[in-house]
Amino acid sequence: MSTVRLWTDAEAEANPRVKAVFDDIRATRKSDFVNNVWRALANQPDTLERIWSGLKDVMVKPGALDPLVKEMLYIAVSVANGCSYCVHSHTAAAKAKGMTGDQHAELLAVIGMASQTNALLNALQLPIDPQFLVES
Amino acid sequence: MSTVRLWTDAEAEANPRVKAVFDDIRATRKSDFVNNVWRALANQPDTLERIWSGLKDVMVKPGALDPLVKEMLYIAVSVANGCSYCVHSHTAAAKAKGMTGDQHAELLAVIGMASQTNALLNALQLPIDPQFLVES
Amino acid sequence: MSTVRLWTDAEAEANPRVKAVFDDIRATRKSDFVNNVWRALANQPDTLERIWSGLKDVMVKPGALDPLVKEMLYIAVSVANGCSYCVHSHTAAAKAKGMTGDQHAELLAVIGMASQTNALLNALQLPIDPQFLVES
Amino acid sequence: MSTVRLWTDAEAEANPRVKAVFDDIRATRKSDFVNNVWRALANQPDTLERIWSGLKDVMVKPGALDPLVKEMLYIAVSVANGCSYCVHSHTAAAKAKGMTGDQHAELLAVIGMASQTNALLNALQLPIDPQFLVES
Amino acid sequence: MSTVRLWTDAEAEANPRVKAVFDDIRATRKSDFVNNVWRALANQPDTLERIWSGLKDVMVKPGALDPLVKEMLYIAVSVANGCSYCVHSHTAAAKAKGMTGDQHAELLAVIGMASQTNALLNALQLPIDPQFLVES
Amino acid sequence: MSTVRLWTDAEAEANPRVKAVFDDIRATRKSDFVNNVWRALANQPDTLERIWSGLKDVMVKPGALDPLVKEMLYIAVSVANGCSYCVHSHTAAAKAKGMTGDQHAELLAVIGMASQTNALLNALQLPIDPQFLVES
Repeated sequence: MSTVRLWTDAEAEANPRVKAVFDDIRATRKSDFVNNVWRALANQPDTLERIWSGLKDVMVKPGALDPLVKEMLYIAVSVANGCSYCVHSHTAAAKAKGMTGDQHAELLAVIGMASQTNALLNALQLPIDPQFLVES
Repeated sequence: MSTVRLWTDAEAEANPRVKAVFDDIRATRKSDFVNNVWRALANQPDTLERIWSGLKDVMVKPGALDPLVKEMLYIAVSVANGCSYCVHSHTAAAKAKGMTGDQHAELLAVIGMASQTNALLNALQLPIDPQFLVES
Repeated sequence: MSTVRLWTDAEAEANPRVKAVFDDIRATRKSDFVNNVWRALANQPDTLERIWSGLKDVMVKPGALDPLVKEMLYIAVSVANGCSYCVHSHTAAAKAKGMTGDQHAELLAVIGMASQTNALLNALQLPIDPQFLVES
Repeated sequence: MSTVRLWTDAEAEANPRVKAVFDDIRATRKSDFVNNVWRALANQPDTLERIWSGLKDVMVKPGALDPLVKEMLYIAVSVANGCSYCVHSHTAAAKAKGMTGDQHAELLAVIGMASQTNALLNALQLPIDPQFLVES
Repeated sequence: MSTVRLWTDAEAEANPRVKAVFDDIRATRKSDFVNNVWRALANQPDTLERIWSGLKDVMVKPGALDPLVKEMLYIAVSVANGCSYCVHSHTAAAKAKGMTGDQHAELLAVIGMASQTNALLNALQLPIDPQFLVES
Repeated sequence: MSTVRLWTDAEAEANPRVKAVFDDIRATRKSDFVNNVWRALANQPDTLERIWSGLKDVMVKPGALDPLVKEMLYIAVSVANGCSYCVHSHTAAAKAKGMTGDQHAELLAVIGMASQTNALLNALQLPIDPQFLVES
């Protein structure tokens, strides 16, 4: 179904750069499960390393936002971009980080409302109020 | 610049349905400022009432998510949908609700990272891992 | 502001292929006004001819849909794709074809509602009901 | 396959708010069929009620646009937003409201043509002709 | 699964206009395989002829860009538009035209990187540097 | 106009991490010009360093694709994502790398054609031909 081949664990074991990333994924997530996106990116170790490293920096490293909030933001972007795989994987990740059914429902309500007003504003083509241009 | 006419305060005052919404916007936000989107929607009171009412339900009514988190989700969706007005207005709203520079920067980093992996996954067309299909 | 140069009337007059298209645009629309998109496409007569010819086939030639309905569909797609120029030009075209303020407002309400449920469905990732797969 | 659980008829019967919406869907559509989107939204009665109520206002209540035209506009937006479920359900709805094969084909031709020129204009970044900025 | 019926070879043979296009597809591609998009567009010979003719002009006729480069551009646009069928068919076409695994991986890296910075820029809403507005 | 403050050269000089990136941008591009996106990202050195480093890896480091081809792919993605700043900056970059007017015109023709068929396929919801699923 995919446009590239997915690497098996045996293949990953045999390639030092791929093995190092898979090992780090497992250690970081404290789980043996390596999902398909990494098995696909394994075809190009440069990209595999760069994407995993960037994802760790943005999503795993402690920062100014709560990890669950970041997963919900990820879902919001993935929904707007129509990425089915991403919606599935990050909804699972958000649930694993404690997202309740009520939080999920409210997340969806916000995404839907924003998409509705985004469309209205794209249709109205309004001048931006000067108040919104002031920077702090 | 816009595709519809923007209502002045004097015009809004003269239309009971529009006046009622503008009054409620000012009371809800505790501010005299009514931004352009409402002045544009005033051309059709049905839509004006429905959108404002929906927005209050989703964004103002206390729920399962923090108000600032909802503003950041709104920004994320607006960025992905390329709505310039919405990005400006909701970034201003998030700052008004206390978003710090570091939180804004991390929000942008998450949006950018999600957009990158969304594109990769849309290119890879991977089968969704069965683990992500299990529902709680 | 644009990424290519816009052709003046004098330049268009001097190029037989561009002149032929500009003449046809004026004759078809019964107006001397040639808007910027054609002045930009003039840089490549092949594309200019192909796009204008396709647009006449789809939008001008009598078919199964009313011309005003087709303009409103064009606006709906342009809003969803976030094309500012297209929203402006096709809103103007729809008004020229008789779109009333109420029709415009209802068009926007439909576009907004569809965008909201599109987002909800992209978030829910539902199986398509078998009833929708039956073809007539 | 979905990211939330779908409610059965038995579950819907047991929840007064969900039952009221399902009953209204059946009465409004004069059909016993309740499609999956409502069974998914049932997880959050607030959102279920708000979306169904908005959809009735925009799509069912007599207005300035023909119901079939509104279904075709819904399809156009759903195609542009890449919502597979929405394209399926609203194409079925449009057929049920009398959309002929020729109208469907012309609808698709308009959507395709608009998407092509949307992309060209997004690439050309043209100034908007002053004529399009004049408001009536 | 589709929203329209797919034409069989026998049906295509019986319709002179559809037969002419299918014959030309086979002759142009030097292959007996006619993929589903043409079997779907066959429902409307006008659109079938217009799309196939345009596609030959843009993608088959020798021009200023290499055929493989054009296939990769097609993939890039299809990924950004979230078109699953198009990503599959044009990835297959690019491989048939010689795209290597390394080229595919680098193509994906560029698409991902561009999507990330697109999102950042849509969030930042920056003024365009005057240097980028100068036309040659 | 932007949602964040743009850093001046003087401010960049005073921050060692920002200065290092600005110096590297200037050295890599052999030009004193640092465009606005970097002045905006300077507000968060972590993101500034990560994005510039990733961009160098993908766009500057010699790889399997020609640098001009990569710029054209970047334009294609930016057009599809409706990022005005990105279309301007990468069109300028492509011209600087030798993109001719004819190549630009053909690039636009491919982007437009792909967007048209993307929309048609999103509307048709076709099953993917088994031939496209075979992996090499």
